[in-house]
Amino acid sequence: MNNIKFVEPQNIEKRSFEIIQNELGDFKLESEKEPIIKRVIHTTADFDYVDNLIFSDNVVKNAKAALKSGATIITDTNMAYSGINKKAAAKYGVDIKCFMADEDVAKEASERGETRATVSMERASKIQGPLIFAIGNAPTALIKLYELISEGKINPELVIGVPVGFVNVVEAKELIMSANIPYIVAKGRKGGSNVAAAIINALLYNVEEN
Amino acid sequence: MNNIKFVEPQNIEKRSFEIIQNELGDFKLESEKEPIIKRVIHTTADFDYVDNLIFSDNVVKNAKAALKSGATIITDTNMAYSGINKKAAAKYGVDIKCFMADEDVAKEASERGETRATVSMERASKIQGPLIFAIGNAPTALIKLYELISEGKINPELVIGVPVGFVNVVEAKELIMSANIPYIVAKGRKGGSNVAAAIINALLYNVEEN
Repeated sequence: MNNIKFVEPQNIEKRSFEIIQNELGDFKLESEKEPIIKRVIHTTADFDYVDNLIFSDNVVKNAKAALKSGATIITDTNMAYSGINKKAAAKYGVDIKCFMADEDVAKEASERGETRATVSMERASKIQGPLIFAIGNAPTALIKLYELISEGKINPELVIGVPVGFVNVVEAKELIMSANIPYIVAKGRKGGSNVAAAIINALLYNVEEN
Repeated sequence: MNNIKFVEPQNIEKRSFEIIQNELGDFKLESEKEPIIKRVIHTTADFDYVDNLIFSDNVVKNAKAALKSGATIITDTNMAYSGINKKAAAKYGVDIKCFMADEDVAKEASERGETRATVSMERASKIQGPLIFAIGNAPTALIKLYELISEGKINPELVIGVPVGFVNVVEAKELIMSANIPYIVAKGRKGGSNVAAAIINALLYNVEEN
């Protein structure tokens, strides 16, 4: 059909990570961060994430423990929800929730003049057990999380703060990094629902690693 | 709660596009491509797409006509499916389909030793009426589309070819650009389900523009 030699699909991921390692050359990533940074690069083909991704102390170890204990993951988009590997999550009894498309969330947001992301985070704050937030889109989600944390209403095991964009995004990321909770943040403008899902998947795939 | 001055959520998108325009400076985008390129930048915060996005002749005009006539959009991921604005699509009677999570697709792919993306494209080829493909992940989807086109089995109104990655991706994009059908392709490694959805949304939001 064509003369191009394609790599067999089952070998693509392995070969991709080899290429990423190759392009990183001698640059040494910290071992607990390495699978996360590489998976984000794999998802975006963007090596900026080598420098962009900021990890709070011990965040990876703590996040893996939370996943093992069956934490609930809350996303701020259905795209991020879709991108998380459900089988890998189910293996640890991890539930994934997104309230963004719920009609009553839209109604309440409209009545109160808030964003759906804000109302979604309030809903999420009522979930029992350990919480992990994967925020790839809405700065207002991060701002609301900062408030809920400051008010002592939640104490999340991890906030992934990787909204993408040009307005409020940088500020909201800086704010959540000041909240004294474990975080993985893509500093600057870049990020996205795909990046949020990639970080969760990298954690899930490496839960058993130390 | 904090001293940062945030832009009101309802003004974020407008302000974002102003910032994007600002950073483009005097660089002039062709008018029919402009809303698409800008929305992809808005989705990724990545200005590389100014150069990366390649449009076949008259593709935007033809794609809008197809959307107006109620084309069916097929995606290769549930992430891209999730990212497409359903209300904007419904306005023109545009249906959106993704077969990737269908159990019988997984079963057939496994039995035949093909990828689910390949089997999904075969399913899609049986849909009646004008077809638009939004491929943000799987090179094998583009390869299968190339075959189906070459065999005269489909004649799509548009193929969005924006898989992301390090293996087979560049080659599959080059292949689909040689298929003599209307395309929008992100040349090189970059792209993603979010980019595929952004291109569809930009087309939907500007259907009425010439």
